[in-house]
Amino acid sequence: MLYFITGNENKFREVKSILGGVEQLDVDLSEIQEIDAKVIINSKLKEALKHREGDFIVEDTSLYLDALNGLPGPLIKWFLKTTGNDGLAKIALSLGNNNAEAKTIIGYVEKSGAVSFFEGAVKGRIVEPRGDSSFGWDPIFIPDGYNKTFSEMSEEEKNSISMRRIALNKLKEYLSV
Amino acid sequence: MLYFITGNENKFREVKSILGGVEQLDVDLSEIQEIDAKVIINSKLKEALKHREGDFIVEDTSLYLDALNGLPGPLIKWFLKTTGNDGLAKIALSLGNNNAEAKTIIGYVEKSGAVSFFEGAVKGRIVEPRGDSSFGWDPIFIPDGYNKTFSEMSEEEKNSISMRRIALNKLKEYLSV
Repeated sequence: MLYFITGNENKFREVKSILGGVEQLDVDLSEIQEIDAKVIINSKLKEALKHREGDFIVEDTSLYLDALNGLPGPLIKWFLKTTGNDGLAKIALSLGNNNAEAKTIIGYVEKSGAVSFFEGAVKGRIVEPRGDSSFGWDPIFIPDGYNKTFSEMSEEEKNSISMRRIALNKLKEYLSV
Repeated sequence: MLYFITGNENKFREVKSILGGVEQLDVDLSEIQEIDAKVIINSKLKEALKHREGDFIVEDTSLYLDALNGLPGPLIKWFLKTTGNDGLAKIALSLGNNNAEAKTIIGYVEKSGAVSFFEGAVKGRIVEPRGDSSFGWDPIFIPDGYNKTFSEMSEEEKNSISMRRIALNKLKEYLSV
């Protein structure tokens, strides 16, 4: 059985719609303090293997700012908690560099313990918050080729350019070989 | 026996000079992903209790920027790794607010599992890096009332205004009651 470890129903729906036979496993795995998403994911996968038998996937979707040499990355939640989207946009704009990358990394571990990673990245730019503010950093990220933040897009539109989908398609290809 | 958990010889010397009967315990406790230093310390103390019998102290000394609503705090090492001191100073100066606080939090756990915290804080300001760059964020922090960064001070001078000493003296008082 393949388990996707997440507490997020929307993410699970997106993953299931692409991969098919996968079950949601909503367990809270501790997140080590790291900025390398692969190290965090790897640690979670190793923990998952101890919990039950199966194959597991864990994903991390983070925002990487050029002006901050890649921060916040997986530390995004702490920025949202302190500076907020307002503050994060202000940092990028004050530093005069609003280039950013939204990146999903999916880690997949097989019963044997072998871990593989699959990435999807979308380049874009940081702007002051626009649109519905309910989902993470969506209000401040505009993907290249668009004039709307993720928050200003419909779910279909956003999913059509999703970095998560790019990563998932790579995983799907891997699983089908 | 009272153990101070640290891999840092300098910190241990400072602690021993103030507390007296304390032994260094150089074990690498995992640091959970958090910005609340007390939560991180608490988790380490609980882990330490599992390792061996005794009383333990763990300290966190971090830099909190007003311009970042308290970041980086315990996340300082990731900023040093990405933006560096240069970048961190540039953020504060670009945002037009260089106020900062250097804060030590000491957590003390007794065999019973009871945890107490002791804090020492020094207010100051962020400047572009000056002086010896070998120790953390010392090159960019000037404590109030001084014109030198921590890096430009002698060890004695720095220790005389140390936020760690303030916290340690509180712990010492607590232990002597």
